[in-house]
Amino acid sequence: MCPHANGDALPNGTSQMVAVDMSNGATHTSSVKSNGVNGHSNGVNGHSNGINTGAKILEQQQRNPYAPRASDFLSNVSNFKIIESTLREGEQFANAFFDTKTKIAIAKALDAFGVEYIELTSPAASEQSRADCEAICKLGLKAKILTHIRCHMDDARIAVETGVDGVDVVIGTSSFLREFSHGKDMAYITKTAIEVIEFVKTKGIEVRFSSEDSFRSDLVDLLSIYQTVDKIGVNRVGIADTVGCANPRQVYDLVRTLRGVVHCDIEIHLHNDTGMAIANAYTALEAGATHIDTSVLGIGERVGITPLGGLVACLYAANPEYVKSKYNLSMLREIENLVAEAVEVNVPFSNPITGYCAFTHKAGIHAKAILNNPSTYEILKPEDFGLTRYVSIGHRLTGWNAVKSRVEQLGLKLTDEEVKDATAKIKELADVRTQSMDDVDSLLRVYHSGIQSGELAVGQKEALDRLLRKHREERQRARDASASQPPLQQIC
Amino acid sequence: MCPHANGDALPNGTSQMVAVDMSNGATHTSSVKSNGVNGHSNGVNGHSNGINTGAKILEQQQRNPYAPRASDFLSNVSNFKIIESTLREGEQFANAFFDTKTKIAIAKALDAFGVEYIELTSPAASEQSRADCEAICKLGLKAKILTHIRCHMDDARIAVETGVDGVDVVIGTSSFLREFSHGKDMAYITKTAIEVIEFVKTKGIEVRFSSEDSFRSDLVDLLSIYQTVDKIGVNRVGIADTVGCANPRQVYDLVRTLRGVVHCDIEIHLHNDTGMAIANAYTALEAGATHIDTSVLGIGERVGITPLGGLVACLYAANPEYVKSKYNLSMLREIENLVAEAVEVNVPFSNPITGYCAFTHKAGIHAKAILNNPSTYEILKPEDFGLTRYVSIGHRLTGWNAVKSRVEQLGLKLTDEEVKDATAKIKELADVRTQSMDDVDSLLRVYHSGIQSGELAVGQKEALDRLLRKHREERQRARDASASQPPLQQIC
Repeated sequence: MCPHANGDALPNGTSQMVAVDMSNGATHTSSVKSNGVNGHSNGVNGHSNGINTGAKILEQQQRNPYAPRASDFLSNVSNFKIIESTLREGEQFANAFFDTKTKIAIAKALDAFGVEYIELTSPAASEQSRADCEAICKLGLKAKILTHIRCHMDDARIAVETGVDGVDVVIGTSSFLREFSHGKDMAYITKTAIEVIEFVKTKGIEVRFSSEDSFRSDLVDLLSIYQTVDKIGVNRVGIADTVGCANPRQVYDLVRTLRGVVHCDIEIHLHNDTGMAIANAYTALEAGATHIDTSVLGIGERVGITPLGGLVACLYAANPEYVKSKYNLSMLREIENLVAEAVEVNVPFSNPITGYCAFTHKAGIHAKAILNNPSTYEILKPEDFGLTRYVSIGHRLTGWNAVKSRVEQLGLKLTDEEVKDATAKIKELADVRTQSMDDVDSLLRVYHSGIQSGELAVGQKEALDRLLRKHREERQRARDASASQPPLQQIC
Repeated sequence: MCPHANGDALPNGTSQMVAVDMSNGATHTSSVKSNGVNGHSNGVNGHSNGINTGAKILEQQQRNPYAPRASDFLSNVSNFKIIESTLREGEQFANAFFDTKTKIAIAKALDAFGVEYIELTSPAASEQSRADCEAICKLGLKAKILTHIRCHMDDARIAVETGVDGVDVVIGTSSFLREFSHGKDMAYITKTAIEVIEFVKTKGIEVRFSSEDSFRSDLVDLLSIYQTVDKIGVNRVGIADTVGCANPRQVYDLVRTLRGVVHCDIEIHLHNDTGMAIANAYTALEAGATHIDTSVLGIGERVGITPLGGLVACLYAANPEYVKSKYNLSMLREIENLVAEAVEVNVPFSNPITGYCAFTHKAGIHAKAILNNPSTYEILKPEDFGLTRYVSIGHRLTGWNAVKSRVEQLGLKLTDEEVKDATAKIKELADVRTQSMDDVDSLLRVYHSGIQSGELAVGQKEALDRLLRKHREERQRARDASASQPPLQQIC
C-alpha cells in the first residue's frame, strides 16, 4: 500500500497544519441510528415511491441553507434507498478478487453502515459465487440481499434457490447491445422478461427488471417494456447508464418521463466514465427515482459507478439530518479502507469526505473565514464523519488571521499589527520553501519573546532576522552538544 | 511515488489482460491542431458567447450517438473556453508548493495541450508569486495569462504591472462571507468593483468580475451587481461554487437566469466537495456559460475543483470532433503525471480517461460485446488519448467470447464448444485464485494440444486435469534442472 493510502498520513514535505479545535454553536442532536429497518419497509409490492409534502421540505429548508430553494414534489432526495453493489459491480473491477472471508467482511460492514440492499454477483457465474451468495444470505443481516442475473430462466432458477430477498434481472435493450451482444429483438426480450419476472414472483421475493445501456435505447421500446413489466407487478424497474454517457439533464428527463409511465419503484445504475455518476444519481432522485446503485469507492467495470461516499456527500449536503438518521457515517472511512485494501488501490486524494485533504483549508481568506465560522467554506461537518478540520498556515498563501489563531493556541500575546508583521516573515520564508509547523511555531515564539524583551518592534526586519539567526545557532549548539554525548547503550 | 502512480503498471496480483488490437471501421480524420489561436479570438470586449445554429447541432448528432437528442440553442457545449487554474487554485491544494521551474513546466505543458487561458496566483500573495507571474508572462505562450486578485485597488495596481493579458477579480457576496470574511455590504462591494474594473480597463487588458460563494448569495444582489459591471464593460462575470454545495439543476437555473441579464461572457468555478464539479460544469455550458475553470486532476482547496481531464471526457463524449480540434488529447496523461509528481499524489485509479483501468473490460457479457464493437461499452476512444483498451479474462466472471479472442491471438484452432469447455475450466481455477495471462495461455495450449493429439474431447474433465497436471510437472522438472546448473559466474 502507498504511504497515505489510509488517508491518515501526509506525504513528506507537505506543509504542516493546525488542527482547529472549534465547537461552534450549531449543535446537532447526533441521533445516529446505527441501522434501522431501512429497506425492509418496502414490501414485495410496496411501490414505496413517496412524494414529499411541502411542509416537510419547508422544515428542511429552515434547518439547512443548502437545501433546494423551491420545493419540488417529484424529488426523492430525502426519500431514497441505496443498493450497494460492491459485491457485484465491484467484482467487475479489474483488480477485484474477493474470497469468501473478504465478501463476508464487506457485507457485514455495509450492513453496519446501514445500506438498505446488498447486491451480489450472479450465482450462475461460478460455483464459488453460488456458495458465497448462500453464505451471505445466511448471515441474518438487516440489509436485504439481492443477486443480479441475466434475463434468462436458467439463471433465475439458480438465483431463487440461494435464499436471496430479491433478484435483479437485466437485459441489454439498446440497438448496440441488441446487435453486438445478445442479438435478440424487443419481442423476444419482452417475452423472456415476463417469464422470468412471473417465475421469481411465485417464490415470494422481490424482482427488479432493468434495461442495459438505457440512454442509447429507443425511448418507445424502453417505455413499452417498462409499462408491461410494471403491469405484471415487478417491484422496481431499473435504468442503467452502462457506458457512462449520460449527463444530468438527460437523466432528469428520462427518469421523469418514466415516473409518469410506471407505478413501481425506479432504480438507477450509473457508470462514471466522464465523472458525472454522482451528479447523475442526485438528479435521478430529483426526478423521482427511488433506489440508487453504488459501490465503495465506485469500483466496477472501467472507472466504475456512483461511489457510496460521494453519493452520501451530496445527499448529506441536501439534508444532513435525514442522511445521519439512516447511515452510520463515521464508518465510511473504515469501509473505504477495507475495500481499498482488498482491491489494492489507494483512496483517491480527491475523494469526497475521506480524501486526505477534504477538510484542509489553505488560502489566507479561506482560513480567516473558517476560523470565524466553519460553514463559510464547509458544507460537510467533518465531525459527523468522525474526521477533523485543518487549517494550513506555513505557506506563501497564508493569512494573518490563521496565524493569529495559532498564536492564541500557543498561549502567546501579540497585537494584530504584530501578528501581521510575523505573517509577512512567514510568507517571505515560505517563498523559498514550505515551512513546517515547527518552523512556524519557532518563529512565533522568537517574535513574541523579542517583543517582550524590547529587542523587537513591528517593522524591524533586521532585528527579527538577527533574533531568528540567534535562535537557530542556539538550537544548533544544543543539537551538537547532545550529539557529542555517547549513546545510552555505549555507557551501559 | 507509489507503484502505479504513473498509470502504467498494475499492482501485483492483478488479473492479466489481453491487449485488444482492433482497428474498427470508423476512422476519424485525426486533425489534432496542437494549439490554435484558441482564446485569442475573444477580444477585450469580445462578448463571444456564441449561439449554436440548429444545422451545426444536427450535423453533430448525425456523427455522434451521444450528442443531445434535441437541439438546445442556449448550449455552449460545443463553444467554450478553458481557464486552467492549476497555477492558482491548484496552488491552494494542501500539498502544492510550485517552484519557478515547476510553474514554467506546467504552464508550457498546458499551453501545448491547448488551453485558452492560464490563471496564476495573485502577484500580491508574495514576492516570488509576483516574480513567477512576470516570468510566465514573458514566455510568449499562445494561451492568455490571467491573474486572480481580491477586489481591491492595491492588488489591482500590482497585477496590471506584471504583463498579464487579463485580471480575474473576486469578492465574496454571500451573507456568510460578508459576515465572517470581509465584513463589507453590497453598496461597498459594488463601489469597489466599479473602481477596480474601470482601472483595469484603462490598461487595455481583460477583466473579469466574480462573486464568491454565489450559490449562497442573495439572487437579487447577485444579478444587480452583475448587471452593473456588465454595463461598464467587464469582459466576463464569474459564478463560483466556492463551497461545492451546488447541484446540476441549481447551476443550470442560475447560469440561465444570468444569461438573460448580462451580455458579457460567463465563467464558472466549481468546487468538488460532493463530487459534482464535472457535471456542474457541463450543465453550466448547457445553460449558456462560456468559460470553465479547471485544474489538472482537480487540485485546489480541500478536494479541489472541476478536473481538466474529467471536463475533457464529458465534452469529448458530447462532441469528439470539436474537442479533438481544440486540444492535444494525447498529452493529457503526461500533464497529469507532471502535476501528480509535483504535488506528491497518485493519479486516482478511478480518474476519467487516465485511471489505470479506464479502458479495461472484465465481465463476460461486456468483453463479448467489446470484441464485436468497442462502441458497445465505450464512449471514449482510447486511441484518441494515446491509450490502449484491455479485456481481462483470467477471472471467474470471464466469458467464452473473450477467451475465443485470446485463442485466436495465440494462433490456436478450437471450435466454439471447445472454447466454452476451456472457459469452464478457467472459471473453476479462477474461483480459487485469479489466473495470470501466463496461466490462461498455458491452459489454452494444453487444451489445444490435447484436442490435436486425441487425448482430450469436450467435457472430459478428468483427462484435462491429467494433462494440466502433466504439464505442471514437466515445467517443474525444467525449472529444477535449470536451478541445479551452477550460476554462470561460478563456472568462470
